[in-house]
Amino acid sequence: MPVNFAAPDPASLFAVPGVELGPAQAGIRKAGRYDLLVLRFARGSLAAGVFTQNRFCAAPVLLCREHLAAGGALRALVVNTGNANAGTGEPGLAHARQTCAELARLVGCAPQEVLPFSTGVIMEPLPIDRVLAGLPACLAALAPNQWALAAQCIMTTDTVPKAASRRIEIDGVALTITGIAKGAGMIQPNMATMLGFIATDAPVAPALLQTMTREVAATSFNRITVDGDTSTNDSFVIVATGQARLAPIVNAADGRYAPLLQALTEVAQTLAQAIVRDGEGATKFITITVGGGRDFAECDRIARQIAHSPLVKTAFFASDPNLGRIVCAIGNGGAADLDPNRVSFWLDDVRVVERGGRAASYREEDGARVMRQPEITVRVDLGRGTASATVWTCDFSHDYVSINADYRS
Amino acid sequence: MPVNFAAPDPASLFAVPGVELGPAQAGIRKAGRYDLLVLRFARGSLAAGVFTQNRFCAAPVLLCREHLAAGGALRALVVNTGNANAGTGEPGLAHARQTCAELARLVGCAPQEVLPFSTGVIMEPLPIDRVLAGLPACLAALAPNQWALAAQCIMTTDTVPKAASRRIEIDGVALTITGIAKGAGMIQPNMATMLGFIATDAPVAPALLQTMTREVAATSFNRITVDGDTSTNDSFVIVATGQARLAPIVNAADGRYAPLLQALTEVAQTLAQAIVRDGEGATKFITITVGGGRDFAECDRIARQIAHSPLVKTAFFASDPNLGRIVCAIGNGGAADLDPNRVSFWLDDVRVVERGGRAASYREEDGARVMRQPEITVRVDLGRGTASATVWTCDFSHDYVSINADYRS
Repeated sequence: MPVNFAAPDPASLFAVPGVELGPAQAGIRKAGRYDLLVLRFARGSLAAGVFTQNRFCAAPVLLCREHLAAGGALRALVVNTGNANAGTGEPGLAHARQTCAELARLVGCAPQEVLPFSTGVIMEPLPIDRVLAGLPACLAALAPNQWALAAQCIMTTDTVPKAASRRIEIDGVALTITGIAKGAGMIQPNMATMLGFIATDAPVAPALLQTMTREVAATSFNRITVDGDTSTNDSFVIVATGQARLAPIVNAADGRYAPLLQALTEVAQTLAQAIVRDGEGATKFITITVGGGRDFAECDRIARQIAHSPLVKTAFFASDPNLGRIVCAIGNGGAADLDPNRVSFWLDDVRVVERGGRAASYREEDGARVMRQPEITVRVDLGRGTASATVWTCDFSHDYVSINADYRS
Repeated sequence: MPVNFAAPDPASLFAVPGVELGPAQAGIRKAGRYDLLVLRFARGSLAAGVFTQNRFCAAPVLLCREHLAAGGALRALVVNTGNANAGTGEPGLAHARQTCAELARLVGCAPQEVLPFSTGVIMEPLPIDRVLAGLPACLAALAPNQWALAAQCIMTTDTVPKAASRRIEIDGVALTITGIAKGAGMIQPNMATMLGFIATDAPVAPALLQTMTREVAATSFNRITVDGDTSTNDSFVIVATGQARLAPIVNAADGRYAPLLQALTEVAQTLAQAIVRDGEGATKFITITVGGGRDFAECDRIARQIAHSPLVKTAFFASDPNLGRIVCAIGNGGAADLDPNRVSFWLDDVRVVERGGRAASYREEDGARVMRQPEITVRVDLGRGTASATVWTCDFSHDYVSINADYRS
């Protein structure tokens, strides 16, 4: 059960002019479930993406980078679940190329105008015959109002489909932004998350779209972690179809850039947080903000140290204000000259630590009250600067172990 | 239940000339259990120690560093369980000083010749009255043949006392080395472990004893991890009473140094591995060796990335050869220019990956056979150098979550 996130009402997911979605059941790993998705884009659409920094990145990630380097023109993308096509060496790369070539043939475009994505088990050969055989069914299913089914189609251990949508108006023109994402475990995106796609009909020049994609990722998907494992397949792509009747936005100084960035970021943050809310076994959604640091990097390291500590995460699961574990994690955050006597932290509004020790005002029942909530904010003040960083994470429960001990079987 | 480690037979733990041990029940956290231990050393004993790198280190760690800096002469050490005296600010430091002063008075030595150690819950005030009141009982109990009871006395979530002993002969003189350790969770020692003490009657000069302690820690306690959380209290101390009738060993070129280092290392490795075998919820003992690297640091980072991945650890728990998770962890190990196509790895004798993909000879039933064993070796070859690093770790089970969600209650 996700923490305060439900499957979105399909009616709340606005169609994006220039985007059609085609989900199908291709039997890639199991029969009778949606597992293959094609998105088709109008001519003139542009894409930008950010991808995992894992050195064992998947074959489709290699191909996405190669195709986007050709300029970013995009006519289609294809996503399969059930198999990550990662750790599959040269044959895996050949399978990803075959998939793009076949979809390009069916759509009538160049293979470089197709992006491939895979998610599922690592190090097993992609059942390429089933992928290729499923593509015509995807094309036959293409329709603009299927974002909800598309979100369902890309799920693996997700318990709920993840989608979000916004409409904004710029210069009197209505713009639409709709996106989907998937992911629940092996989540500490480093550049992007395990599959996030956002489309807009806003017209954005290629170089700016790439900048914008990085900016959006930096404040959304790159701020979440479930278990600290950066996946081999993390990919986040923004597609701008340019169907809206607006002159192209070419640089960030354009007054229209900020509101568009804001709306894209909101959609991306909703999707990113939905991944944490649906984190494997999650029962709590936790915001960790570390401030008062010398620079962003040290705040970020300490925030992640807290977010990844199995002892902190199990204490959240137990609703146990065993807050020494947070103190311990702060001390492990790699700030070599940190003075513990200047550190404070709060659980929501409850001050827990001041001057490196338990706050005089702290009462265990206040900590226990906050720890029982489904949403908790941990705020740390390092007391030595003005930088800050926030990460979103979840707790660590028996179900995380069950889900990951049983996955595959 | 520890993995292949049982409580040692008390008769196998040799008394060390110059060392007496005094365990007592001081009711520090719970009544009716041994929780306070004093070791008294003969005049002329020397100590060297290594301590946690956690910035929120405990008050007793601060005091140990201060006292050892005075030269290393040691007459007593005191260990309490039930409370870590960490995250306790200035009052915690004052409590540690009071403990040393009182024990020094009872033993008849300077406070600088006493080392204090604490382990247990973080960020709760040390019940100093109970500690002080318990010291006379410890002194009354002093005896040289109590290493087994001493090991039991320092346990927290440990399920088994950890002790090891060796006798060696140098220049016709018999030397004894006996040590105890505790720890099961919050274990990724960085310089030392959550309490390890080894005593020998060998005479070793102060500077060399410090070098030797670092060397022993580097190949024993610093090679283990249970959950990646470096404790606030990690401390490892070697005491040399010098009671053996040998001229002092002053430098590492002395022919007697190597066999003594070897024996100390064997005792330390047995204790360190015992901590992993008794890791919270552990059902498997896993040795991870990463070789073929450019330098030790990159091999060590990748080995720890594998050892800390919750997905890898849960797969070991499930005996599931979901080996893509190890591939993923290798790729996350921070070697930015690692070429996946040169990477191989083995589970014991089973080759799993070659040239970045599944080995042609690999059969899942072979992987499954190894995964079911209680002891497993993962061997990675990065294919780009001659350096290597080994870490010892355990799996991640439901019991880890239960133990850490219930600890304190």
